[in-house]
Amino acid sequence: VETEDLVDAAREAGIEPVELFVAGENVEPEVLAVVSTLGHAPRVVGLFRRADLPTGRRNVTVALWRVGDPGNVGTLLRTTDAFGAALSLSEGCADPLGPRALRASAGAVFRVPLVPWEETEGRRVALVAHGGVPMGEVSRADVALPLTLVLGSERDGLPESLVTQCHLAVSIPLSGDAESLNVAAAGAIALYELSRGAS
Amino acid sequence: VETEDLVDAAREAGIEPVELFVAGENVEPEVLAVVSTLGHAPRVVGLFRRADLPTGRRNVTVALWRVGDPGNVGTLLRTTDAFGAALSLSEGCADPLGPRALRASAGAVFRVPLVPWEETEGRRVALVAHGGVPMGEVSRADVALPLTLVLGSERDGLPESLVTQCHLAVSIPLSGDAESLNVAAAGAIALYELSRGAS
Repeated sequence: VETEDLVDAAREAGIEPVELFVAGENVEPEVLAVVSTLGHAPRVVGLFRRADLPTGRRNVTVALWRVGDPGNVGTLLRTTDAFGAALSLSEGCADPLGPRALRASAGAVFRVPLVPWEETEGRRVALVAHGGVPMGEVSRADVALPLTLVLGSERDGLPESLVTQCHLAVSIPLSGDAESLNVAAAGAIALYELSRGAS
Repeated sequence: VETEDLVDAAREAGIEPVELFVAGENVEPEVLAVVSTLGHAPRVVGLFRRADLPTGRRNVTVALWRVGDPGNVGTLLRTTDAFGAALSLSEGCADPLGPRALRASAGAVFRVPLVPWEETEGRRVALVAHGGVPMGEVSRADVALPLTLVLGSERDGLPESLVTQCHLAVSIPLSGDAESLNVAAAGAIALYELSRGAS
């Protein structure tokens, strides 16, 4: 984990690094420049254990189906954190611990439980680009908690076989010409709408 | 503009390339590989004029203050397109025509009018991370159209001087621990909420 901000986010979440490298203190700055994936050398690099990351359940879980872009996975981690949700990743998703996802998550990876795909629970609601119940017209009973919100890949959305396994398919009504929203934008809107309904 | 998808998006919007290069037809594939910013060689590269991009007004304009990440600028282009809005970029924003922004926009750059900063109009509503009127409690009169929604940079948000020039500051109520949302996620939620109010 590169940069002080991310290491601090981990510590605030009660997760201590196994090793901590600080430029000019216990390591030469040039060494951090070599291992860094950033455009510039970070002052701090921390080494963490995957097993120390949060586990557990939340009332809402966002389940991503083959979302391959690490920026989208990281942004969705940050958004699930903001709305108190958990995240689940299918095979074929970008690694949430890769450098781009970590940066986009802004530290949320240390706070959001990652739920194994087969352990997601409650009602399953698929978010589809077209043809679902318009979001905002969904009844509260249809989004009773606990709930798993299933989002598809950037390019192909959700396979029909996965949609039919869900209790409900919902769509975000769009007023413009776009085919669909970016998956992280769609997920943000869905989490916002769910948080309204629950309040 | 690289890839058939983006060139097709331009043509569907009535914007023709000044030059069109197609691998194996009027150019050697190796040439496109050299000029490409993608990880692989595109089959098609189109050259367009900036002056051919859309102009004009929309009832809602999203105005971005110093949003430097090209992925966020491109994603917000796509989202403004989906909700029928226009986009305005301050100095210091990423170039909406750079390769990453173009790809994230998924062709929306050919449909969304780019409004010069000093020509944005109507009520100005600032979206701030904390302390604004909770979105969803804003009255319709406060978001009467035309309206400009002002969003700040990823790291520093909006400067106080800019917020005080706005008619209203609104915030997205968050249930979790995150400091704030990604600017593209926040913009998506705000545009969705505005489109609900306007319907």
